[in-house]
Amino acid sequence: VTRFVRAGGGSAVSDLGEQGLLDRIAARLDGPPRGEIWAGDDGAVIVAPGAGLVWTTDVLVEGADFDLAWSLGGDIGYKAVAVNASDLAAMGAAPSHALAALSLPASTPLVFVDALLDGMVEAAGALGLALVGGDLSSASEIALCVSMLGAPGPAVPVLRSGALQGDALCVTGRLGGAAGGLAALRAGARPGGDPTSDRLIERQLRPRPRVGEGMALAGAGASAMIDVSDGLLLDLARLMAASGTGCQVDPRAVPVDRDLEAVSRTAHAPPIDPARLAATGGEDFELLFSIEGGALDRARAALEPHGTPMTVIGEVTSGAPRFGQEELSSMEELGWDHLRNP
Amino acid sequence: VTRFVRAGGGSAVSDLGEQGLLDRIAARLDGPPRGEIWAGDDGAVIVAPGAGLVWTTDVLVEGADFDLAWSLGGDIGYKAVAVNASDLAAMGAAPSHALAALSLPASTPLVFVDALLDGMVEAAGALGLALVGGDLSSASEIALCVSMLGAPGPAVPVLRSGALQGDALCVTGRLGGAAGGLAALRAGARPGGDPTSDRLIERQLRPRPRVGEGMALAGAGASAMIDVSDGLLLDLARLMAASGTGCQVDPRAVPVDRDLEAVSRTAHAPPIDPARLAATGGEDFELLFSIEGGALDRARAALEPHGTPMTVIGEVTSGAPRFGQEELSSMEELGWDHLRNP
Repeated sequence: VTRFVRAGGGSAVSDLGEQGLLDRIAARLDGPPRGEIWAGDDGAVIVAPGAGLVWTTDVLVEGADFDLAWSLGGDIGYKAVAVNASDLAAMGAAPSHALAALSLPASTPLVFVDALLDGMVEAAGALGLALVGGDLSSASEIALCVSMLGAPGPAVPVLRSGALQGDALCVTGRLGGAAGGLAALRAGARPGGDPTSDRLIERQLRPRPRVGEGMALAGAGASAMIDVSDGLLLDLARLMAASGTGCQVDPRAVPVDRDLEAVSRTAHAPPIDPARLAATGGEDFELLFSIEGGALDRARAALEPHGTPMTVIGEVTSGAPRFGQEELSSMEELGWDHLRNP
Repeated sequence: VTRFVRAGGGSAVSDLGEQGLLDRIAARLDGPPRGEIWAGDDGAVIVAPGAGLVWTTDVLVEGADFDLAWSLGGDIGYKAVAVNASDLAAMGAAPSHALAALSLPASTPLVFVDALLDGMVEAAGALGLALVGGDLSSASEIALCVSMLGAPGPAVPVLRSGALQGDALCVTGRLGGAAGGLAALRAGARPGGDPTSDRLIERQLRPRPRVGEGMALAGAGASAMIDVSDGLLLDLARLMAASGTGCQVDPRAVPVDRDLEAVSRTAHAPPIDPARLAATGGEDFELLFSIEGGALDRARAALEPHGTPMTVIGEVTSGAPRFGQEELSSMEELGWDHLRNP
């Protein structure tokens, strides 16, 4: 497998050293507004985005979370920012500031680091948040740890624990696309192929967190919310466990990514089951939420300006969490657990 | 080299999986105060410790920042929290909240993870900050990325860039001990040997960030400050570069750790040069600061309740940064740059 990051000549991180690379990165970042201090000191000084803060951290690790055979530096930087923003979106919060800790071998080409930073800057710009600095460390594998702060929107933060019996269970967008993109990449597809495959690969490499949608749903009265990062079934199980409720989800109601069927017919792709990928494939970063039935129209209206559809997939119950006829606890594979016996 | 973490039988992370380990960790953390939500959701909800925030992130990576031949899980957890607190201390800020992202192989023994968490909880308790949650990832090497928030003390944050010509340059405590501890560990010494060696090893494995001292010095009028994490000379060069000033430091004035001389006579130790370790050895996490001469007595008085001495080592000048007769820019080795050609 070709590891793009190792390919080619040119300068490596070791030619600059830590201070040289820190200076190079600081020069690439925007300057702070008055009253804030970003890169270049022991810590960043920022204005609190609110009296209440919503705060998350998430790390992408080479091999486990991205594969250098197909992820470019820019993809990794973009995704690291996006997945953290998705965590805040799931609370109905607006991301405001991010810090990044990058671990990498001294032999890493500078062009890779530059691209990674470009990807972070691009995602931060798209999401309207400030990338304020970070830290560099030596490591034998590349890892990018982002920490992100935000403020609750006009509504209070939406937790996983607020689902109530009788609430409708809904999901934004369509599911399975990111897993389909991963399957295509693993089968040899690359960006620049057919448009269907490209859209799936884009969902895998450059996910779009539902930040505006999360705030809109919080305002519309979502009672509980989680982002679908590890697969619908696993995140559904988490939402129900946190709320102390069960559910009845209709497998036929789950909105499947429309490109999945098409890609299963391309030469590259291995056989895939679109419905299975939609239920267990991770990394779609759509929002799974509960809301009382009377507020469904309000939620749909709140999402309309974002152009994002929502689908009712079931109902919160007092029983066990069920997907069709099956109890989630008895299902062999719920989703992606990267720390289980591989 | 024995890697303690791999030794022994017992359960591994893979027996619990991600959700099981997250639940185990959440159960080990304190519960949040009213109005805050800690572990168990997509993000943590916290009350901003102030209208202005000081924020840092720092990661410890296996091999580069700790060696499993001698660092126990508890040491690693403790140090990861301590080094982040030291960054805030160098701004004169009070740490209030920490998040941790732990990357590890699924084969990691649970006892190691438990010890690591114990070390984090111990450090958080000692520093009076709240460990509010975090994230787990799969990786082939262990890395612990901490993100820490705090509020400026009564004074404004102290930056690296505020040193003024004529200011005195000072350092808290004594230097070189942590590097001496590392040399002793590398030469085969282990905790539980002679008291001298034990004290040095403790400085390496469980550094004490100067949090109270940083706030006291900010209040006493320190004009610029940095923590000595990568060695006095390198951090001195950074402070001067940020301030756009030079300095004249007297090498004989640098306070050398008193245990260094003693350990150089033990059977285990390789030949060490105490003065050189004090100038270039990293990880002492003492504070290097500038302050106008008229405020030196106030600074000494401010440090007295903490039992921490301070030493004037030189003066800020308009010329080049000099250490004795030499310019820092012409010195071959300033300190620890882990991303230079190894």
